[in-house]
Amino acid sequence: MTAPSTQPTPTLADVARRAGVSTATVSRCLNTPDRVIEETRNRVLEAVRELGYSPNFGARALAAKRTNTIGAVIPTMENAIFARGLQAFQEELRLKGITLLVASSSYRADLEEEQIRTLVARGADGLFLIGAHRDPALYDFLNRRGIPTLAAWVHDPDAPVPTIGFDNHAAMLDLAREVIARGHRRIGVISAEQASNDRARARVAAIRAAMAEAGLGADTLSLVETAYGIDEGAAAFDTLMQRTPRPSVVMCGNDVLAVGAMGRAKETGYDVPGDVSITGFDDIELAKVCSPGLTTVHVPHRQMGTQAAQALVAMVAEGAPGQGQRLDTYVVLRGSLAPPRA
Amino acid sequence: MTAPSTQPTPTLADVARRAGVSTATVSRCLNTPDRVIEETRNRVLEAVRELGYSPNFGARALAAKRTNTIGAVIPTMENAIFARGLQAFQEELRLKGITLLVASSSYRADLEEEQIRTLVARGADGLFLIGAHRDPALYDFLNRRGIPTLAAWVHDPDAPVPTIGFDNHAAMLDLAREVIARGHRRIGVISAEQASNDRARARVAAIRAAMAEAGLGADTLSLVETAYGIDEGAAAFDTLMQRTPRPSVVMCGNDVLAVGAMGRAKETGYDVPGDVSITGFDDIELAKVCSPGLTTVHVPHRQMGTQAAQALVAMVAEGAPGQGQRLDTYVVLRGSLAPPRA
Repeated sequence: MTAPSTQPTPTLADVARRAGVSTATVSRCLNTPDRVIEETRNRVLEAVRELGYSPNFGARALAAKRTNTIGAVIPTMENAIFARGLQAFQEELRLKGITLLVASSSYRADLEEEQIRTLVARGADGLFLIGAHRDPALYDFLNRRGIPTLAAWVHDPDAPVPTIGFDNHAAMLDLAREVIARGHRRIGVISAEQASNDRARARVAAIRAAMAEAGLGADTLSLVETAYGIDEGAAAFDTLMQRTPRPSVVMCGNDVLAVGAMGRAKETGYDVPGDVSITGFDDIELAKVCSPGLTTVHVPHRQMGTQAAQALVAMVAEGAPGQGQRLDTYVVLRGSLAPPRA
Repeated sequence: MTAPSTQPTPTLADVARRAGVSTATVSRCLNTPDRVIEETRNRVLEAVRELGYSPNFGARALAAKRTNTIGAVIPTMENAIFARGLQAFQEELRLKGITLLVASSSYRADLEEEQIRTLVARGADGLFLIGAHRDPALYDFLNRRGIPTLAAWVHDPDAPVPTIGFDNHAAMLDLAREVIARGHRRIGVISAEQASNDRARARVAAIRAAMAEAGLGADTLSLVETAYGIDEGAAAFDTLMQRTPRPSVVMCGNDVLAVGAMGRAKETGYDVPGDVSITGFDDIELAKVCSPGLTTVHVPHRQMGTQAAQALVAMVAEGAPGQGQRLDTYVVLRGSLAPPRA
């Protein structure tokens, strides 16, 4: 497998000769297969396979201005937070014959920048990013290179690129109002690091806003910032429950943290929701499967992914400016939230 | 964002001039940063940022034979089945300054082939694939192109590429023996489509082997094949429970199917494990979080990802033949498995 090839690499012309068609036809088969009749396409792909031909960047750039590749950078591949939305994004690209290449940045801005530059260097026609807040120099770079870029998981009309997502502040505000309406006054919050995460910032700000509405002093909010993860959620729960006053509810920045907190609550003998209520954000599978079920914010992941793909493809194909879009979220009430014990 | 760039694209020489270093130094900073002293590296990266320079395939191919990009194709990004292993794989590559680009094939062999060819066309130095069974023509192609390739999630010394993973047959055999030892005789199985999935085939074969050991006729095995997914697991559970004889245990091809089956069992009034036992495979978060806890096979996902990255990097960097490796799995007994009611 590993010895570098000694045979000459087959060319587009070799494929054309073998298939008995023009090189232009071969290019069309590779770049816009739907514009070639099936019989011809099959003959060409057969020749591609037999010769082991692989179009390289140069050849495809000549054949068509595009590589039919879209790049995405997501913060993490673990915990399925972005999985369903990304799957829907890919399925939609698929219908248009476009391949998705994904990199994951571990929530690190420096890695994300490196991966964006790599995807551009590898010929991505467009980029799909999570969240809109990043170094303006990076947006300048993408602008200069003319790479259509779209951001999801947020909706921010003022962002430098079109955003298709939801209003993280409004979504968490709805949930915080439900929590406060049930009588909770001592509110614990487990959030992702806010500095590098605009979604996390908006969600924490929304909880503060709901508390202010209800006349609750900011001193009754007890915050822990941590990395996303089940174990991190468990550790943060311990920290919060050791503080005075002890929170009657723990609102988590996402479902993964919440499930970690709930597991830890059981291990340490706290009844949920009797002793402490717990809420999440995202409504991923974990939220339905854990018991009690997790009260959370439902995010339309599939819809977000599908519409983002349609918008980004239009930006790439037609040089369209790109339409941002705000999607609706709603609170899902399950057993993990109840009024605090008197 | 979308207007194609009109300014001239900055070159390696522009960066070198701005940073006051040689182009060779710029190349080293981009390709082997650890071989450049920090002060110089920072000055160069600063110039790269200011100019919006992005090394293209050509420039990097000149600067070094490699692109420092590894490609991976996984069957799905949903359900976190491959997430932890892939995360560990990426973290290990990260330590070596290599970027990982991932495509997901939706368990479709034709899409996987297309994505493999795309990753090669985009300059991937090496490939990480799941499972070893695929069209020999595809392995020929990778061989001719001299692309080091490694397969994980299976261990098969006879595979055309090195494999780092576990023995799916032995792993499921261990679990099936535990199930049968508890007195189960009517065994229901929910499996992924076996045709395109060598892991699924090995796991079902292992259950049959354990039954044969115990003198159970093949007719007491009741099998449903379905796509991986929570909902699919739920639907398959319904199908199995309507058959006669009704199974006393439902062994699932992975934890996602098992959690779907367990949820459906509760909805339809079956006590788990009182009325029916349920088992999974993988030991992902879902298995610990659901209640009762899921009896499953623990797969060393992180170890598999880390060792696969180390082996593949050695294949790429040194043209090493590549060492396959078998990792151990073990059965995790949780509340979802118990003896059948008399």
